[in-house]
Amino acid sequence: MFGFELQAVCPETGARAGVLHTAHGDVETPVFMPVGTQAAVKGVLARDLIHDLDAKIILGNTYHLFLRPGHETVRQLGGLHKFMAWPRAILTDSGGFQVFSLDALRKVTDEGVLFRSHLNGDPHLFTPESTIDVQLALGSDIMMVLDECLAYPASHEAARVSMKRTVSWARAGYGHYRERTEADRRSAAGQRPAPLCFPIVQGSMYGDLRRECTEQLLERGAGGYAIGGLSVGEPRALSLEMTEVTTALLPRDKPRYAMGVGMPEELPQYVARGVDMMDCVLPSRDARNGRLYTSEGRVSIKQAQYKDDAAPLDARCGCYTCSNFSRAYLRHLFLAGEISYCTLATLHNLRRYLDIMREIRQAILIGEFPEYLKTVNSR
Amino acid sequence: MFGFELQAVCPETGARAGVLHTAHGDVETPVFMPVGTQAAVKGVLARDLIHDLDAKIILGNTYHLFLRPGHETVRQLGGLHKFMAWPRAILTDSGGFQVFSLDALRKVTDEGVLFRSHLNGDPHLFTPESTIDVQLALGSDIMMVLDECLAYPASHEAARVSMKRTVSWARAGYGHYRERTEADRRSAAGQRPAPLCFPIVQGSMYGDLRRECTEQLLERGAGGYAIGGLSVGEPRALSLEMTEVTTALLPRDKPRYAMGVGMPEELPQYVARGVDMMDCVLPSRDARNGRLYTSEGRVSIKQAQYKDDAAPLDARCGCYTCSNFSRAYLRHLFLAGEISYCTLATLHNLRRYLDIMREIRQAILIGEFPEYLKTVNSR
Repeated sequence: MFGFELQAVCPETGARAGVLHTAHGDVETPVFMPVGTQAAVKGVLARDLIHDLDAKIILGNTYHLFLRPGHETVRQLGGLHKFMAWPRAILTDSGGFQVFSLDALRKVTDEGVLFRSHLNGDPHLFTPESTIDVQLALGSDIMMVLDECLAYPASHEAARVSMKRTVSWARAGYGHYRERTEADRRSAAGQRPAPLCFPIVQGSMYGDLRRECTEQLLERGAGGYAIGGLSVGEPRALSLEMTEVTTALLPRDKPRYAMGVGMPEELPQYVARGVDMMDCVLPSRDARNGRLYTSEGRVSIKQAQYKDDAAPLDARCGCYTCSNFSRAYLRHLFLAGEISYCTLATLHNLRRYLDIMREIRQAILIGEFPEYLKTVNSR
Repeated sequence: MFGFELQAVCPETGARAGVLHTAHGDVETPVFMPVGTQAAVKGVLARDLIHDLDAKIILGNTYHLFLRPGHETVRQLGGLHKFMAWPRAILTDSGGFQVFSLDALRKVTDEGVLFRSHLNGDPHLFTPESTIDVQLALGSDIMMVLDECLAYPASHEAARVSMKRTVSWARAGYGHYRERTEADRRSAAGQRPAPLCFPIVQGSMYGDLRRECTEQLLERGAGGYAIGGLSVGEPRALSLEMTEVTTALLPRDKPRYAMGVGMPEELPQYVARGVDMMDCVLPSRDARNGRLYTSEGRVSIKQAQYKDDAAPLDARCGCYTCSNFSRAYLRHLFLAGEISYCTLATLHNLRRYLDIMREIRQAILIGEFPEYLKTVNSR
């Protein structure tokens, strides 16, 4: 009932279709996970994520939830699922990515990372163990171990030192996860199956370091593996190369999660390199900023050309926005600064991402993924 | 099929229950109309207004829609109903209230009111005829004639002059409405019944002027009457007195609309004075600002006392927000500045208003409105 079930593999590319079984339902892969940073996907209600998008899994950010409302508060209120009225699966990141974006506000030691809250400057320490504890308090279905996320570019030496630290933290974090969840299993409260925990492959843009990191993380035999340190400013070819180097070494029967990717046209590229899971704030952030994705390309909705445009944003899209409203109406709401604009735009952009993922999955299942890839590459 | 049908009148107070038949469905009265200023009720989707709130009528602001996106644009796109995917009734104001709020940017003459757009400073003229044309282009179900809305306090003489102008504008505007809609009825396109048009009673806080204005407006035999110039800073007792003075003279068989009122506890007070229709931005604006209405009184959701509060906002409320989320979650979303907070809070506050109106209507229909009024007065 738990774990990952592989349903089809594209013999030409290695793209995979599967099902990830979680305590909060099955997740069909490859999957794109909408980002619910602060216990909410910005602009979209939990019920809309279910009824409009049929999202099976969303992401929560450990760093943000740790600071506000606090993981203990969430735990007391019944966990993140109940708190945000989201009955399906939740993946939480380790908090590492956000902490390493704080720059001036942090200090890394072998023990962990000291940082100051971006909200009020309070000092906090994240250790491999403490971030697991936070994610357990939140009630995450799929947790990440603490990793160090390097800026791009980084020297080989800096990347090697950092990768070693990530491996060491992964050992500590994963060990702590095993202990904590075994204790849970023995306790009276532990009626629910334990969540999964993924170590994160780092190594900057160096293939040898990525390979070394992957091999060392494999020793633990985790339930899945994440590929971190991508989309940090590097050329896209390099992100894809690092992904390929990593997935080549990862076990076939475990899910692979490429963190923080990608653009709509990149989704099939990552899948073609053996990735099963992705997340990105792009569709929701771009929606709010007026950048909308359609089956015919991008639309910048504020442009004057849409002033009287009675056509839907994307005639081929079945979302609430495209079924009911014109481009002219969306442009009007955008210019007027109406809150509903954010909701309608985000609903559409997320639907577009999820539709692309469903197309990809279908193509893999019926053995036509190479053709699908050719079609999208030629666009 | 059109017009207003009275179903019950409270013999003690004069409170009325009825049905207003429009080209876009029946509206049960007394009714509170959510405000959709710029072709959207802030924070709430059209479908939520239907499925969550069962709102039968909403309000659009002529001034705002005239400026952006422009009434001709809305007309070309099929009218306001289609533009905003709202299949039910729409009432539009005359634009007068907004223009008279512009202060430095306007000049009143007998012809109409010259004003500058708050968006870009462009000069525009609203006349009694032009504002009818704008509302016809929008496709409103219930239009208002242009009125002059005085600030409070005003001298008797200033109020008299202004009231006279309002009456003169009402004659011109209503005459234009009759002409325009008769022409429509004769044309091939005019398959749909004509919209209603309400003159607006003014007269500041002077009973004699209110009476004089009402009597003069009655000459036209309009489909309904609005009471304007309330909620402009006067004591509430005075607003209610002016309402009572006016409704006493209005025909029994036509709907009465008190513009821009009121607080939740005031709703039954206006109904007790013979008012059938109300609107106010308060429930939606207060929602966004963290002021929530419950059956037990007001809640300021940002307060620390709600930090760990697992209870719903209002245990007696059946809205999506109260059925699924805790006060702690709403407080978290508010503090985090999440867009979804606005949606959840507005859904609740509007539901509270509409529930109050349904309670009031039910009490009138079963002959228990005086008891209902006693109960709410004693709270």
